[in-house]
Amino acid sequence: MSELIPSSLPLRNDLVGEEPYGAPQLDVPVCLNVNENPYEPTLSVVDEITRDVRSIVPTLNRYPDREHIALREAFCKYLERESGVTLEVEQVWGANGSNEIMLQLFQAFGGPGRKALGAAPTYSMYPEYARDTFTGWATVQRNSDFSLDLEGLLTAMERERPSIVLLTSPNNPTGTILPMDQLEKVLQASQHIGVEGAGPHVHPVVVVDEAYIEFRNLGTPTALDLLGSYSNLAVSRTMSKAFAFAGARVGYVAADRGIIDCLRIVRMPYHLSAITQATALAAFKHTDEQLGQVNHLREVREETAEWLRLQTWHGKPLQVAASQSNFLLFGGSFEDRDRIFEELLKRGVLIRVVGPEGWMRVCMGKDEEMARFRKTLAEVLAKLEEE
Amino acid sequence: MSELIPSSLPLRNDLVGEEPYGAPQLDVPVCLNVNENPYEPTLSVVDEITRDVRSIVPTLNRYPDREHIALREAFCKYLERESGVTLEVEQVWGANGSNEIMLQLFQAFGGPGRKALGAAPTYSMYPEYARDTFTGWATVQRNSDFSLDLEGLLTAMERERPSIVLLTSPNNPTGTILPMDQLEKVLQASQHIGVEGAGPHVHPVVVVDEAYIEFRNLGTPTALDLLGSYSNLAVSRTMSKAFAFAGARVGYVAADRGIIDCLRIVRMPYHLSAITQATALAAFKHTDEQLGQVNHLREVREETAEWLRLQTWHGKPLQVAASQSNFLLFGGSFEDRDRIFEELLKRGVLIRVVGPEGWMRVCMGKDEEMARFRKTLAEVLAKLEEE
Repeated sequence: MSELIPSSLPLRNDLVGEEPYGAPQLDVPVCLNVNENPYEPTLSVVDEITRDVRSIVPTLNRYPDREHIALREAFCKYLERESGVTLEVEQVWGANGSNEIMLQLFQAFGGPGRKALGAAPTYSMYPEYARDTFTGWATVQRNSDFSLDLEGLLTAMERERPSIVLLTSPNNPTGTILPMDQLEKVLQASQHIGVEGAGPHVHPVVVVDEAYIEFRNLGTPTALDLLGSYSNLAVSRTMSKAFAFAGARVGYVAADRGIIDCLRIVRMPYHLSAITQATALAAFKHTDEQLGQVNHLREVREETAEWLRLQTWHGKPLQVAASQSNFLLFGGSFEDRDRIFEELLKRGVLIRVVGPEGWMRVCMGKDEEMARFRKTLAEVLAKLEEE
Repeated sequence: MSELIPSSLPLRNDLVGEEPYGAPQLDVPVCLNVNENPYEPTLSVVDEITRDVRSIVPTLNRYPDREHIALREAFCKYLERESGVTLEVEQVWGANGSNEIMLQLFQAFGGPGRKALGAAPTYSMYPEYARDTFTGWATVQRNSDFSLDLEGLLTAMERERPSIVLLTSPNNPTGTILPMDQLEKVLQASQHIGVEGAGPHVHPVVVVDEAYIEFRNLGTPTALDLLGSYSNLAVSRTMSKAFAFAGARVGYVAADRGIIDCLRIVRMPYHLSAITQATALAAFKHTDEQLGQVNHLREVREETAEWLRLQTWHGKPLQVAASQSNFLLFGGSFEDRDRIFEELLKRGVLIRVVGPEGWMRVCMGKDEEMARFRKTLAEVLAKLEEE
């Protein structure tokens, strides 16, 4: 693509040769590559959204509510129900997908001379948020089981003095949950870190990306529990994953109102359309239905993990990362994962080449899709071993 | 607001004390402050949108088309019909409002060490796009009638060597159209400007913001006519103004595909929701209806300008800037425009304090709203003169 960009255009130097981010959007029978919830909205959700959208269309010549108050109330209600945490409207904020939330966090707290710190391997958009906002991006390596190297992270915080510490729970693409005691240690340590260039009394914002948190094992706490105790904690959520609403592009963040007020400075005015607000509000009225398959998908994850561990590659069982999400990172020793990807794709199954060398990621589909995935993967691995 | 932001948060230094951008959103009988088209979508538009949204809701668990191809085809069809210019899908690109378009342009072509150059007074969000992307912002002053000081701009281009030249036609808040021969001179000059820090063979992108262009006088050309001749020209449009679709948040840009490919690098993945795409596509099927009142609003603008010129302030006629938009900048000698604003607001009429000292902006509402505006303004000016 980039050959089509004339060199006379003033594209930023650090963007030259870059490609647009994103998995291929292919028309394939079994799509298990972008961690969607495979279950469509029910008819009652369709009816509700249709009704509510219809009622606001006559106002579309006017700008929407810039502060999206009704939707923020719905975020609070949802979080109370999902995680048992009571929040005020001033503590939540929405955007077009949690990646716009992340961009706003980087716009407010990043910038030239500043750094964000994460734990690799992790979500591959993070370096792009950093790049797009001229923020440095540093990582500490996770342990070999992809759990957080807490000591390594604390050391890196002291060394790098980042303005943003970005943790992910469950982590993408590994599925690893962040234990609360580790998060608390990070938050406590953050109170003693002076952000580089900002003096000793300015501390990093700790962002926990909980895009997949609804898939966690029952009884597992969330970072929301710590919001009351730390004014520098921001917890990002999305309607795109468990909530089965990726097409509507709604992400949100819960944090101290000071952090929300910072985001309000950098947001585009009227960033959330009236249609988006109405659609999300209507869907929240059907939270039970939207989350209706989450328990089942969690079971499918456990069954699929078990099945994968029984498969072998060159005589050794496949490795599977412990996941509390709706996807599994598996393999660990695929010396040519692109080949496996291609052979699966030829047979109508699309998964994702992502994460450390040797690993691949598959997300949980419907039962018949998972059956086809298992059958096809077994077939492909057998074929490639024979070659 | 900013007092609520704890000083321990690493908010960027240049954002400290900043307020979120935007006019007050007040519940007032006559809202003439944000340049909306006052005419609501008709019932047939409501029906079409409802039908099309309903048909895509069952897919909302899936991510939308990242490249929004169908919508880009609709942009092309609309621009062909509206301005007689034939474009390919690869030459247009959409986003959540033209302010997201502008942000993407600044993200791709701005950044530290670079500058954007505009012609003041102009749209007050421009310095915010610059600030949000760490781009410098320089302006040349417009002539006293708010027309472009072409010589001044060309001199500033040589001096500043900007990566972005940002012109606005019609200009906000003045309504001033940019004559094509002036734009051509800017484009020609841009070929001889080497962007600061990027060498002599990298030339500025010239962005023409045509948010209000559908309100121009009949027969007036648009910058789209020059797209075939200049690969560094980008023309920004929106559905928010004449198209009466502000609540749906859809802006777009037409440019050489090289420029579009640069924007694709910095856009958030899946930035345009499936709902937004479906809603905009449905509305484009009713372009005649959506634009149905544009001719009338143009007449209202001319009548209102004429009426305003007959009003006086301290014995002198009000000044009115020549406008080809749906708003008028008027006054010129109001020594306390905030007082006039407040007195109008008390009487249920909301306009905007914006532009150079002494001036105010009013946008064209429905006939009965304009009658009330005239009556109320006359009353307020008379009352204040008596004090």
